[in-house]
Amino acid sequence: MIYLDNAATTKPNERALSRAAAYLTEKWQNPSGLYRAGLSLQGELKEARSALLSPVADETLFTLTFTSCGTEADNQALFGYGRRGNVVTTAGEHAAVASAAAELKNRGVEVRFAPLNGDGSVNAEALLSLVDDKTSLVSVIHVNNETGAINDVNGLAKAVKAKSPRALFHSDGVQAYGKIPFRLGREIDLYAVSAHKIGALKGTGALIRKKSLPVRPYIFGGGQEGGERSGTENVFGIKVFAYAAEEKFRTLKEDFTRLRAEREALWNALDKDIFVRISPEEGSPYILSVSAPGLRGEVLLHMADDRGLVVGTGSACSSNAKHRYSRVILACGADERTADGVLRLSFSPQTTAEERAAAADILNAAARELKEKTR
Amino acid sequence: MIYLDNAATTKPNERALSRAAAYLTEKWQNPSGLYRAGLSLQGELKEARSALLSPVADETLFTLTFTSCGTEADNQALFGYGRRGNVVTTAGEHAAVASAAAELKNRGVEVRFAPLNGDGSVNAEALLSLVDDKTSLVSVIHVNNETGAINDVNGLAKAVKAKSPRALFHSDGVQAYGKIPFRLGREIDLYAVSAHKIGALKGTGALIRKKSLPVRPYIFGGGQEGGERSGTENVFGIKVFAYAAEEKFRTLKEDFTRLRAEREALWNALDKDIFVRISPEEGSPYILSVSAPGLRGEVLLHMADDRGLVVGTGSACSSNAKHRYSRVILACGADERTADGVLRLSFSPQTTAEERAAAADILNAAARELKEKTR
Repeated sequence: MIYLDNAATTKPNERALSRAAAYLTEKWQNPSGLYRAGLSLQGELKEARSALLSPVADETLFTLTFTSCGTEADNQALFGYGRRGNVVTTAGEHAAVASAAAELKNRGVEVRFAPLNGDGSVNAEALLSLVDDKTSLVSVIHVNNETGAINDVNGLAKAVKAKSPRALFHSDGVQAYGKIPFRLGREIDLYAVSAHKIGALKGTGALIRKKSLPVRPYIFGGGQEGGERSGTENVFGIKVFAYAAEEKFRTLKEDFTRLRAEREALWNALDKDIFVRISPEEGSPYILSVSAPGLRGEVLLHMADDRGLVVGTGSACSSNAKHRYSRVILACGADERTADGVLRLSFSPQTTAEERAAAADILNAAARELKEKTR
Repeated sequence: MIYLDNAATTKPNERALSRAAAYLTEKWQNPSGLYRAGLSLQGELKEARSALLSPVADETLFTLTFTSCGTEADNQALFGYGRRGNVVTTAGEHAAVASAAAELKNRGVEVRFAPLNGDGSVNAEALLSLVDDKTSLVSVIHVNNETGAINDVNGLAKAVKAKSPRALFHSDGVQAYGKIPFRLGREIDLYAVSAHKIGALKGTGALIRKKSLPVRPYIFGGGQEGGERSGTENVFGIKVFAYAAEEKFRTLKEDFTRLRAEREALWNALDKDIFVRISPEEGSPYILSVSAPGLRGEVLLHMADDRGLVVGTGSACSSNAKHRYSRVILACGADERTADGVLRLSFSPQTTAEERAAAADILNAAARELKEKTR
């Protein structure tokens, strides 16, 4: 099986699993326990926190709280800090932010959506024009999960604060963390990350927060995570997260360069009579979104699956939704024919040149066959 | 190490871990993926859902949604269904309900607390007197996590509905599920359970809900779990949960009977010049709370730890809290001297008679030594 749906989830890193195995078999106690085994786990959580935070942020300015997933981290940011005035976000957000914003709207908060450029990045000028002195929170996805477009969140946050110093700035960093070179600027207040997109496990995520912000828990209970996220910490998942991140950050730059070349090679090998490109060249090298206008992406996905290639259509996370077309792809300005034909090919550092070449052959063959059939 | 803090967390069941290992190494794909590997995981989640729900509920009446923990499940119940009128709960709730109730109060919902009996069970008459036609939700813990007292939640739910048919009834079943013989009556609307208290993993829980209730998500996003809980499902954790529960339910009655005898044997072996009993005889056999009035429970805990015995003081989940005394133990009517001396000894089916006997010796010796010192 060739797996090119790494933006949906990644294969767990075997070394990280094996390094963390002791947290299932020996060090499984409750980190809130007052006995030595519990106290020592508190120390281990602290280590993991630092291992995950230090590669992207100044630990004197930022803190990291473990959550159950990126979605929960985004929800905590929006519901915790976007309660008054208006909230400004983009038409290119992952459902974790978009659905939370819709719920905020249900609760009477004014939510403003900035339009996208053709590649899926936010129109910066339009975003800034929506910000005013009543804006409590601005939320901009760092790497668009459908197109790979990178938003300059540090620059945007700086511009937002220049216009409205009291507005807070959140970014959904799920497709950026551990994948693109980046450090959090001091104008960013909140940043959501997920474990299972970088070789760790489903069920673990984190919210990075500027220390100067008030604590606003979303899950209330025993007061774990300094009162910021109650519920017994998922120590095993957290340790796998830290170990997997360590490896990702160690080779981040080489992976970035190599995958950019692989992504371009894959695009070059696709039949241009059939496929058009959606992802920008300067986007994340981990994501190549293409479309075969006039063909159905979902049918192509199944044909590829039959031939041993796994790809995505738009965001896997929205496959449960009733909408046939991705709202994000439409917001990029694509027509329905193009939106219907979208395939998302997403990579990991484990993706080989052979897999990439075979994937192009499979996609070309499947699309030609389908085109022939539907003529 | 003798481990008697199983109400805080349990050692993961090795067979369940090994049966679920394939979900880390082979079947790690995204259950929302439209390709075969994804679709097949949806089927596996359905199986797990049924394995967890069927032992306690009629699957035609109830459904089960996976959450990240028992705390999140309790939060979803309270914040989703306790938004209007008043909410009635007890002074004996776990922090997951108590803190959520406090937050509801902050948001302007009237919250009423029913007092406890001396053993930690709720005073049923007082509870019912608080329910009126404006009550949206009643929340009663099934097994008190500090004393082990069992509330007759089926009977209470029936009485609540007789008085106020529109009130919903939630129960925190974290210390009951897989431990005490029980099936959900049709008057119960919501029921929260946790994986890591029955040999499965931290980071997994579930909310059982009557199908006739409207869906009220607490985590918003990609629409997983039928829109009820967004975020990619933690398939590995969920499968470990299902496998561990299968074993717990298979031997539930024998374990119940044997642990009741072990609990009594432990109590009988404790020095009655030092220890008083808090847990009722008819409570959960998994929990024995005692106190050494005049001695500090926390000091005894550390002395026991030094001698190879791990025990709890009150709820491990509240060890982060600033309060020196357990609010639940005080609500049982204990004075501060008694509340300060509380130790919670909690069992699992793996607890042996030898461990139980050694634990009594260690506790007696530690308490005698401490009493001598502090005289």
